[in-house]
Amino acid sequence: KRSEPEPAQKSLLEEYGFPQNGAEVRQYISHALSYDQAKKTPRWVIEHLTKEKIVGLADRKHCKFKPDPNIPPIFSASNEDYLRSGWSRGHMAPAGDTKYSTEAMAETFYLSNIVPQNYENNAGFWNRFEMYCRELTQRFGDVWIVSGPLTLPVPHEDGKKTVTYQVIGKDDVAVPTHLYKVILARKEPSDETLAEGAFIVPNSPITFQHQLSEYQVPLEILEKVSGLVFFPQVDKLKEVKNICEVDTCKLIELEEFKLYIAGRSMKNARSLQKVEKIMLGLKEGGIKPDEYLMELYEQKKKELETSETVIVRDGRGG
Amino acid sequence: KRSEPEPAQKSLLEEYGFPQNGAEVRQYISHALSYDQAKKTPRWVIEHLTKEKIVGLADRKHCKFKPDPNIPPIFSASNEDYLRSGWSRGHMAPAGDTKYSTEAMAETFYLSNIVPQNYENNAGFWNRFEMYCRELTQRFGDVWIVSGPLTLPVPHEDGKKTVTYQVIGKDDVAVPTHLYKVILARKEPSDETLAEGAFIVPNSPITFQHQLSEYQVPLEILEKVSGLVFFPQVDKLKEVKNICEVDTCKLIELEEFKLYIAGRSMKNARSLQKVEKIMLGLKEGGIKPDEYLMELYEQKKKELETSETVIVRDGRGG
Ligand SMILES: [Mg+2]
Ligand SMILES: [Mg+2]
Repeated sequence: KRSEPEPAQKSLLEEYGFPQNGAEVRQYISHALSYDQAKKTPRWVIEHLTKEKIVGLADRKHCKFKPDPNIPPIFSASNEDYLRSGWSRGHMAPAGDTKYSTEAMAETFYLSNIVPQNYENNAGFWNRFEMYCRELTQRFGDVWIVSGPLTLPVPHEDGKKTVTYQVIGKDDVAVPTHLYKVILARKEPSDETLAEGAFIVPNSPITFQHQLSEYQVPLEILEKVSGLVFFPQVDKLKEVKNICEVDTCKLIELEEFKLYIAGRSMKNARSLQKVEKIMLGLKEGGIKPDEYLMELYEQKKKELETSETVIVRDGRGG
Repeated sequence: KRSEPEPAQKSLLEEYGFPQNGAEVRQYISHALSYDQAKKTPRWVIEHLTKEKIVGLADRKHCKFKPDPNIPPIFSASNEDYLRSGWSRGHMAPAGDTKYSTEAMAETFYLSNIVPQNYENNAGFWNRFEMYCRELTQRFGDVWIVSGPLTLPVPHEDGKKTVTYQVIGKDDVAVPTHLYKVILARKEPSDETLAEGAFIVPNSPITFQHQLSEYQVPLEILEKVSGLVFFPQVDKLKEVKNICEVDTCKLIELEEFKLYIAGRSMKNARSLQKVEKIMLGLKEGGIKPDEYLMELYEQKKKELETSETVIVRDGRGG
């Protein structure tokens, strides 16, 4: 029997280092993520929500999308990649979940937290889904959310299956075919009962006819297609409830949603003309302003009448 | 100014664990790899070659493709995924690089080291590329090779770019559009001069008209599209030579390749009829058997004549 050389010494195999994929966990003030250096998007972004964090004075008006300074430039997306691409910059950890901290909110605008998202989906269904996640903090003391992009296969008539997705900009940022969220919720630390839900949502417009529960999938299915294991420290031997059974899984309805959007526009309105246009829009949509909006309206009118008078006076004075 | 809640405590954000992608480095006797749990293929496989390791008695005849016992079944490919898929099981760390150890070779047959590869590419151009990598050990004391799959975008007439790739089997194993190799070679440990080369090869048949150098790309390009940083411990400030300038980057030519394949078939031949068919094949291809093949031929004939006689005698005796 001939003598065999020793198995490869690890040190020699590793002499110039193993390839690095940059998928390590990156921690921010309010979220953590793993980045996909090939797709130039996150793989997953995790947040922990409480009813305290989602209120406060932080305002997205003061935030700017920008490359994450922690990502090597060669692997980073840029705002130019998204510009005129036909796709919006979709937050995975939503800005609205970090109202408690201006700094935390600013970090959600790093492009490491962003994927190319259909505009209507971003402003509509996905937005409402995010509102539902925040609403959960009213009924659960701790809510964890993992969000991320997927590129899923499509079966064809000939029996073959293919994955197809667009890439945008000079950095070839991958446009996901779908987005996912995994929700884990706990009433309070002393309560060991957990509720969980996994959802896969197409990256396309979704009307108000569709219910969130239509997009729920078994967690194992999402794990298999994403290649990820979620909340690995959840004790699989204990019962984990279905979030859609212990909670509503109901997204905000059309009318309420339009009032919410009108309220946000009202707050940002800078002219009396704009204020009246918002009210007219609601009226034409057959939506009756609620008390909260009426209050906002009166307040804004007063504010703008004063400042517009000032401008006119300044004009006269000058 | 209102008081803000504390930034998320890491421990609370991580209470039930961060998502796991299984991309950590996995070490085997002769290779190491990072696995892609979504694509059910490796991301990269690294080997260290020396002229000692590529000779020996280990034989792929005794090896079987099988799921890697270290990969969770939910994320593993299976032989059934490949069966009748139209794609071969292509080694990233080649079996032929581990002739020194039966155990090391067996590990290269784990499906964690395999991607769906075009048959002709696997048996032809890629095979010749692997032979060239082994040939490098004659001129370089240490040769490191990283190999892996890619799914690259294609530009369309409308200016859009898309990535499209097939997935096979019930596990949706991703069929790469391209394969890559990065070569790093060092004459001897005391010699600090390194030679490097990065190559991107389409996962399709490639004829003998094509040269290896046609597929060479700047390392940075491969890094950008793969999302990987290769040989991170190479000192970027020192000069690294182009392997195709300090070595040949010439793959084995048609005639020599056919003699090599004939030699391998000859070794495995189990009947005199098969032996003669191999010789006839060469003759019809206008290829003159070299000394080595003639020796193999005579040896095999002797061996088979003896054993066939034995069988005949056995037949008479029974
Ligand atoms: Mg959004
Ligand atoms: Mg092969």
